[in-house]
Amino acid sequence: MKLIVEKDYASMSRVAANILLGKMYQVNRVNLAITAGNTPVKMYEYLVAEVKERPYLENVHFYNFDEIPYAGESGFGVTMTNLNRLFFHPAKISERNIHVLDTENYQNQDARIQADGGLDLILLGIGEDGHFCGNLPGTTTFADETTLVRTDSIPEMRDILIAEVGGDESKCPDVYVTMGPKSVMAAKSIVLFANGRKKASIIKKAFFGPVDSAVPASILQMHPNLTVILDAEAAMELDVEEQ
Amino acid sequence: MKLIVEKDYASMSRVAANILLGKMYQVNRVNLAITAGNTPVKMYEYLVAEVKERPYLENVHFYNFDEIPYAGESGFGVTMTNLNRLFFHPAKISERNIHVLDTENYQNQDARIQADGGLDLILLGIGEDGHFCGNLPGTTTFADETTLVRTDSIPEMRDILIAEVGGDESKCPDVYVTMGPKSVMAAKSIVLFANGRKKASIIKKAFFGPVDSAVPASILQMHPNLTVILDAEAAMELDVEEQ
Amino acid sequence: MKLIVEKDYASMSRVAANILLGKMYQVNRVNLAITAGNTPVKMYEYLVAEVKERPYLENVHFYNFDEIPYAGESGFGVTMTNLNRLFFHPAKISERNIHVLDTENYQNQDARIQADGGLDLILLGIGEDGHFCGNLPGTTTFADETTLVRTDSIPEMRDILIAEVGGDESKCPDVYVTMGPKSVMAAKSIVLFANGRKKASIIKKAFFGPVDSAVPASILQMHPNLTVILDAEAAMELDVEEQ
Amino acid sequence: MKLIVEKDYASMSRVAANILLGKMYQVNRVNLAITAGNTPVKMYEYLVAEVKERPYLENVHFYNFDEIPYAGESGFGVTMTNLNRLFFHPAKISERNIHVLDTENYQNQDARIQADGGLDLILLGIGEDGHFCGNLPGTTTFADETTLVRTDSIPEMRDILIAEVGGDESKCPDVYVTMGPKSVMAAKSIVLFANGRKKASIIKKAFFGPVDSAVPASILQMHPNLTVILDAEAAMELDVEEQ
Repeated sequence: MKLIVEKDYASMSRVAANILLGKMYQVNRVNLAITAGNTPVKMYEYLVAEVKERPYLENVHFYNFDEIPYAGESGFGVTMTNLNRLFFHPAKISERNIHVLDTENYQNQDARIQADGGLDLILLGIGEDGHFCGNLPGTTTFADETTLVRTDSIPEMRDILIAEVGGDESKCPDVYVTMGPKSVMAAKSIVLFANGRKKASIIKKAFFGPVDSAVPASILQMHPNLTVILDAEAAMELDVEEQ
Repeated sequence: MKLIVEKDYASMSRVAANILLGKMYQVNRVNLAITAGNTPVKMYEYLVAEVKERPYLENVHFYNFDEIPYAGESGFGVTMTNLNRLFFHPAKISERNIHVLDTENYQNQDARIQADGGLDLILLGIGEDGHFCGNLPGTTTFADETTLVRTDSIPEMRDILIAEVGGDESKCPDVYVTMGPKSVMAAKSIVLFANGRKKASIIKKAFFGPVDSAVPASILQMHPNLTVILDAEAAMELDVEEQ
Repeated sequence: MKLIVEKDYASMSRVAANILLGKMYQVNRVNLAITAGNTPVKMYEYLVAEVKERPYLENVHFYNFDEIPYAGESGFGVTMTNLNRLFFHPAKISERNIHVLDTENYQNQDARIQADGGLDLILLGIGEDGHFCGNLPGTTTFADETTLVRTDSIPEMRDILIAEVGGDESKCPDVYVTMGPKSVMAAKSIVLFANGRKKASIIKKAFFGPVDSAVPASILQMHPNLTVILDAEAAMELDVEEQ
Repeated sequence: MKLIVEKDYASMSRVAANILLGKMYQVNRVNLAITAGNTPVKMYEYLVAEVKERPYLENVHFYNFDEIPYAGESGFGVTMTNLNRLFFHPAKISERNIHVLDTENYQNQDARIQADGGLDLILLGIGEDGHFCGNLPGTTTFADETTLVRTDSIPEMRDILIAEVGGDESKCPDVYVTMGPKSVMAAKSIVLFANGRKKASIIKKAFFGPVDSAVPASILQMHPNLTVILDAEAAMELDVEEQ
């Protein structure tokens, strides 16, 4: 594990952008799975400025790693809607280079990525409960590949999903899809970033505690090529030696 | 995971030798951690013929990944004694290229390997109880790096170690050392091989069942670059689809 | 440059087979460009035994790097005919995994290989005149990619091609195709092998002399990942220090 | 070759910084050879901000690839003096991570780099005469490794060196050292950048013309992992198709 502690959110975001950009400048095809949510907002600002209208980046392909559909709607779900807003649209990424995961095609996700040459990098956030992608405690097991998760899988899921779809209960879906822990661990490199003191406790637990299915992200510490990028607040529970 | 099923022990051994040899022919330094025991006997026969007296392989460095000392003796323990007999001596590997792990230096093993550039490959066998290296069920946890294991850690350990030192109780040590699961997972690639119907049940469990600390080798299925080589008998409990 | 000197043709061939096999055992797609001719005969014997009827090698794809058509015939040319006889047919390689270069599609060869992820390895022989693939002195320049060569490009070409098509003048073509030096240098690794004292002089010149377009293979010494495998006779003009 | 054309000097510099930063964030040792001169001034401004006082970058090692000594002085020459001023001092790089090439140790440069694991990346500028590092037309040949060049090697050299040492003839040395073309081509990746219309002509010649020892940088187009970064002015002689 490479641990990178930066002083604040902006510099944490700049390092994450640098790592992604460093992967992109290749002759051959590059496959990146990227995250939506709040953590990456600033990083995407940096990325958009350096990716937008660059024909020389046509070799870069993007994948979403989970999706929460809006009940009763047929278009993009929560993740793709956010990725479009944060990155794909402002950066003017061609649709040809965006490989959408949804509840229709999830059973083909792992085979498709393997046929495409594997993921060069997957960028992850982490939840205060230790989840990454849609792998919340109690929903998937470490050996799971891309899978469907039912809304009734754990008691708190319904409220979580209602919040995700914008608070409208009628849009809460019965299922969502996510790449499972084994699918994520198959990536050639994993980058996880986190900021803010709300994340300090789970960072300590997930990356300096035991590998435990109650803390899904704890499996990531077993990957041979993991980089964890934190701001000072998210690192505040780590000992100096751990840093 | 790359699953390779060969018809018999000889061809399983040839494939393992090919993979190791394929890693060796480099200009730059190559670091390999290799296994003793019964499984690799035939593989080392193939390797010796193609490694012995080849000055162009001076770039290849070898590491043992565990060691059981003989109580009351100061020389090599069980693992290095076996590796010397099976491979290092017949292949005339220079001492300069052999990096011995023992109970004196184990706390430095992970840092030393990282400073040497990391392991390019670690070759493992598997026990019927799901152990790899010295990681027997109940002795280490997934997040452990190279560590000392006490003979009283689990009830059956004493008999296991007496068998390992040749049946002489007076030579049974109080401790042994092993690279832990996290140290093994840090290797750039992992190769595990197994032959014989005695291994069929654990192969099914470890690589096609859940990740479970009661089956230590089950963690290996989470590595992005794992190759499992079996003879037909060790693969006999796998479904055709799994093969 | 990694220089490997083996005692005889059989062990030179075994090392070449080991390097190719070592590349093949991957989860992801592997792309290999391989050579016909006399040098590889023994190597293909080894390869066939270890590649034939191995469904786990379906990830390996093969390319020919040159082709001499038979004049007045529409089927395979000299190179593919030989590769079929030496390797593809006895190893039962699926047609899906064989990517044929010919005079019809040569203009697409470089783009196709790049879209396929690039060549992981290209295996080459060398002629006494320093040629590799169809790059004979005076026919191509270092900066050439895959190209058409005319029979009247150099005076001696007509006799060379008549010999290649089996001595029948009526089958001598007006053109052949070859990957150019730049296409070959774009491979991630290059392996060149040679045996016999007839090759000793050109080996010395090409790999220990200046980079000179009169010796096409001399450009290969500039590749960051070149392995040269020789038997003792082909290495006989090298100084001990060079070896 | 990956060709990147950016609109101006600042964005060309940002892309170069991104590529270098992308290489640096590794667990294992990273070896970078970097350039002095005018082209990288802005790039080093970006780099300093993101490298300074980052203990997590202690894995990154730096090499200079040429050196012009000041006659009659025993300290650093022109290149190291500039690198110290532009980057090493403002970024507070530890001396432990700087591997100085000079006229005393040049014969060991290639062996040292190989023992250190090879260069992960070498960053180059280009002269209007097609030189890179100290490889001016007529001073070295493509097959040269790190070597000493005499001031009387070509007629114009004396004036060039007087300019390099600041215009004081008494400081003009008799020799300088440079990594040769073969040493540079041995790097795992090469990045070359150039800005300004003064460079437009040589860019066209070196990367879209023949490989010719009269244009030393033309050999670089044969490297399997070359990235060329230009501003719009340096790219102005390229056809749209070439871009």
